Amino acid sequence: MIYVVGLGPGGAGEITPRALAALEKCDLIVGYKAYVELARPLFDKEKEFVVSAMKQERDRCEEALRLSLSGRTVGLISSGDPGIYGMAGIMLEVARGRTEVEIIPGITAASSSAAILGAPLGCDFAVISLSDLLTPWKVIEGRLRAAALADFVICIYNPASHGRPEHLSRAADILMEILPAERPAGWVRSAGRKGESCRVTTLGELKNQKIDMFCTVIIGSSATYVIDGRLVTPRGYRE
Amino acid sequence: MIYVVGLGPGGAGEITPRALAALEKCDLIVGYKAYVELARPLFDKEKEFVVSAMKQERDRCEEALRLSLSGRTVGLISSGDPGIYGMAGIMLEVARGRTEVEIIPGITAASSSAAILGAPLGCDFAVISLSDLLTPWKVIEGRLRAAALADFVICIYNPASHGRPEHLSRAADILMEILPAERPAGWVRSAGRKGESCRVTTLGELKNQKIDMFCTVIIGSSATYVIDGRLVTPRGYRE
Repeated sequence: MIYVVGLGPGGAGEITPRALAALEKCDLIVGYKAYVELARPLFDKEKEFVVSAMKQERDRCEEALRLSLSGRTVGLISSGDPGIYGMAGIMLEVARGRTEVEIIPGITAASSSAAILGAPLGCDFAVISLSDLLTPWKVIEGRLRAAALADFVICIYNPASHGRPEHLSRAADILMEILPAERPAGWVRSAGRKGESCRVTTLGELKNQKIDMFCTVIIGSSATYVIDGRLVTPRGYRE
Repeated sequence: MIYVVGLGPGGAGEITPRALAALEKCDLIVGYKAYVELARPLFDKEKEFVVSAMKQERDRCEEALRLSLSGRTVGLISSGDPGIYGMAGIMLEVARGRTEVEIIPGITAASSSAAILGAPLGCDFAVISLSDLLTPWKVIEGRLRAAALADFVICIYNPASHGRPEHLSRAADILMEILPAERPAGWVRSAGRKGESCRVTTLGELKNQKIDMFCTVIIGSSATYVIDGRLVTPRGYRE
């Protein structure tokens, strides 16, 4: 049995009782170092942890499968929701039905960041990752254009990475071919964790701000506006 | 002070400790009947609840504001995440800075439904509500087309309502102008609640299934496939 568990944004206050109960049942918990650091304080010293390196997602899932097939109950953890750019899909692909896999959702960065910025996701939105490790940049560009043309709110995951600090700037240029530079936007760094910061700004200003891999960025639709310093997208059109 | 609190899919196991702690601090909790029924068992009998009618969202927020300005700590509850088609935006609009409003996210239906179906939201996705109470149907159609053309996974909220049972069928027809009828899809009814049910199916079959206002529907991208009876969208393209 493998539980793929989302820890939410990071604080103990945002891990659901269901997620915690599943991890309690596990003989051991597998995860990338940063996630294990989040989870370790929640359990007594008896709990066994297997720490794995970043980017070794497939190896981590194969390790979880191997341990599960040896009869142990395994927890595979990540921050946010494992179903959204997370470990759920790859675990199902690696397991291919050979062991039971239960996915336990967590609060994803779109939700946690939106709550800090106000309510920018109050109407239809598109979620786009700027990581081109697995998706060609041309496809990402096409999705940015389509989302802007169809007047979606746009929520950007992985706006930058170690090797690619310029992705958000390129994305903003593409969006500004279609959207006005004054379009309300915002970003949150490390939502719910130590060092959390955020800013309500505009699409045009995003390029001048320090937005790194720990940030989530939200760009409003035509209906989004700023009220009392927070982003709000009313449901449907303004009454 | 007003806390706008998301209860998640419905079960007590998916309400975060942060949400619960905020509601503990509240003198009274305002919500639509069905949500109050979810929250009432979590508290002792001392807690005061104000039950309001469905669709009276603005009235509910005005009541919350009035109570808050009279010096009470108010919790405004809804299921899922209040930031996604929920009460967060309208509460900020009604409050206009006259009282402190804190948004506490919950697990939204996209996450809870995806976890039940497998991992269909593993790559870029668009979230679209089919409710045309506040958004013109033409705009909704445009967003469906744009999402299909840009190869997003599509997650549909409010696929039907009491007055509009045919919306999902119309949406499926629009999507099939662009996408193959065999495109993997799935739906979940009452995720995490009594009477939960789900099905992994295809876009073409959605029209023949009983999909009501309690369902969330997910239609895959070109990368989505079925593995061991579950939907998986690999991150990026298949290796």
